Amino acid sequence: MGIDFTVFKGSKSGEILESKGHRDVGPTQALVELSHCGVCGTDEHYKHADQGLGHEGVGIIKEVGSLVELISDLRVGDRVGMGVSTLTLLRGPCAPTSGQHFKCQNSEQFGTANLDQGCFGSGVAWDVTALFKIPDEISSESAGPLMCGGATVWGPLYEHGFKAGDRIGIIGIGGLGHLAIQMASKMGMEAVVFSGTQSKKEEAFQLGASEFYATKGVTKLQGVQLVDGLLITTSVLPDLALYLPILAPFAKIFPLTISMDKIPVPALPFVLYGYSIIGSGGAHPQSIKAMLRFCAKHDIKPVIEKFPMTKQGVNEAMKKLEEGKVRYRGVLVV
Amino acid sequence: MGIDFTVFKGSKSGEILESKGHRDVGPTQALVELSHCGVCGTDEHYKHADQGLGHEGVGIIKEVGSLVELISDLRVGDRVGMGVSTLTLLRGPCAPTSGQHFKCQNSEQFGTANLDQGCFGSGVAWDVTALFKIPDEISSESAGPLMCGGATVWGPLYEHGFKAGDRIGIIGIGGLGHLAIQMASKMGMEAVVFSGTQSKKEEAFQLGASEFYATKGVTKLQGVQLVDGLLITTSVLPDLALYLPILAPFAKIFPLTISMDKIPVPALPFVLYGYSIIGSGGAHPQSIKAMLRFCAKHDIKPVIEKFPMTKQGVNEAMKKLEEGKVRYRGVLVV
Repeated sequence: MGIDFTVFKGSKSGEILESKGHRDVGPTQALVELSHCGVCGTDEHYKHADQGLGHEGVGIIKEVGSLVELISDLRVGDRVGMGVSTLTLLRGPCAPTSGQHFKCQNSEQFGTANLDQGCFGSGVAWDVTALFKIPDEISSESAGPLMCGGATVWGPLYEHGFKAGDRIGIIGIGGLGHLAIQMASKMGMEAVVFSGTQSKKEEAFQLGASEFYATKGVTKLQGVQLVDGLLITTSVLPDLALYLPILAPFAKIFPLTISMDKIPVPALPFVLYGYSIIGSGGAHPQSIKAMLRFCAKHDIKPVIEKFPMTKQGVNEAMKKLEEGKVRYRGVLVV
Repeated sequence: MGIDFTVFKGSKSGEILESKGHRDVGPTQALVELSHCGVCGTDEHYKHADQGLGHEGVGIIKEVGSLVELISDLRVGDRVGMGVSTLTLLRGPCAPTSGQHFKCQNSEQFGTANLDQGCFGSGVAWDVTALFKIPDEISSESAGPLMCGGATVWGPLYEHGFKAGDRIGIIGIGGLGHLAIQMASKMGMEAVVFSGTQSKKEEAFQLGASEFYATKGVTKLQGVQLVDGLLITTSVLPDLALYLPILAPFAKIFPLTISMDKIPVPALPFVLYGYSIIGSGGAHPQSIKAMLRFCAKHDIKPVIEKFPMTKQGVNEAMKKLEEGKVRYRGVLVV
């Protein structure tokens, strides 16, 4: 038994390489035959590492290890998604083999993990603690981007004390932002959207935005009521100075994308008004389960572009992602 | 009736001026005859403003307004302390006249409030929602520095989910730090103290520190187990890079002193490990009550230096504070 798999890996030069591998199932693992995988900004960061890419995989369990019956409800035939964002791993009892993010011991090492498998491919052996059963209402192509992108915005909204009626500022409409708008609005919050230009205004309202503000060239936000939270989903960190005047006391700010930059946090207004900057890179495993139930119930799904799970497809998806042209999340289909 | 009072004010030149005033009691106010007032770093910031200084006052209630019986347990004869730190006011239903901090609408205006009373003086008319009965076990000279300095370190320790057994890094042993060490250790936490040199090592252990590390010239902390929280109590913000490697996942960092500087927060480790920077400038009124009970029960008191409540005494206390020579909190005595 076991699984023979194809995987698409990064390489020193950044070229995508196709590789083959085999895994027998470990005692706490499941072998998953992949059908889809979302393409995440983080894959960009690993493109130059010799390791399997992809961590938003979805597929069918083909075999489970000897201990799985004891520790999990997952069984052969179940359709599952992979939750491998860093904090899922920090929070959950996951084996190191569960995901590529795990090896990031500090900022210098980010993007240097060395794993022979990944969800850009045909199959993986994965620890069951990082696998989540996908509700029937959610298609596999929709499930992929929820596993990391969805969890990244769900974590702040679900785990940090926000409640219906709160006003959540969402900076940027992209892979993360377009999911945050849907989730926040369906959670009964006001999704207050900030985008560079007016170009995505209509779409923002269709996704559930209650307000929309274009910020390009704007030095002072006019007429914006205070927000209780601020989700920064842009790959380039915005200047906090623009947003400080619209923060409610004790507002929580979440910089959600991977950035090597430093955020200059002005100490005084933070002390005076109790603002927080909260690092968040995913969600607790129990939160991810809640997210999947919520998305199934409220028909929240990513807006996706599909690419074939081939070397050419991976290259095309990665290139479009790098150029910021994906609307709004790429999904590779086996 | 009403109260005639003397007050020591700041002025444009920074000279301390003595001024006289009178107040009749407002419906929700109490007239307090002051006996003591702590000297806080924030008073430095207001020295150049034409306003009464002092917000760590302690005294006896001499008269109460017409509505006080309905809204408060405080009565004539009670010994009370003033809680006026910013967040107390943001959180509590306080009148603008309750404290000098209240007028800080943004960082540019900090230190420019214009009030004719203050606790550097003989008496004040204060809103009862910002007055706290002092337990009998706590002397008035000890109570003063607890009202702002104590609340400033109590807020993070009490309101942010820390629990017995947690390791709390405390950077700096001064007016705030020496109270934080006592509180954290009596709360069952490990007080892990970082100070520039070894000079305060013995004293740190006497106050309750479980570990002590001198940081001057140190570029990498060796052998320090991870800390769950980090209280920055130094007036100059330290380089976070030194402390990142000793932060436990989801560690919470509190910059507690007033600073006009920006804290360069590295985005990546925050996302990867879920760290937070949390602004905190005091404590909720109910927390302040809990703090006073706790300090009474556990004999927590500031180490103080006394100065007379005279123009000369105020000048002397302020000068010593500015020079960083107060061990560890100045108290003016009427």
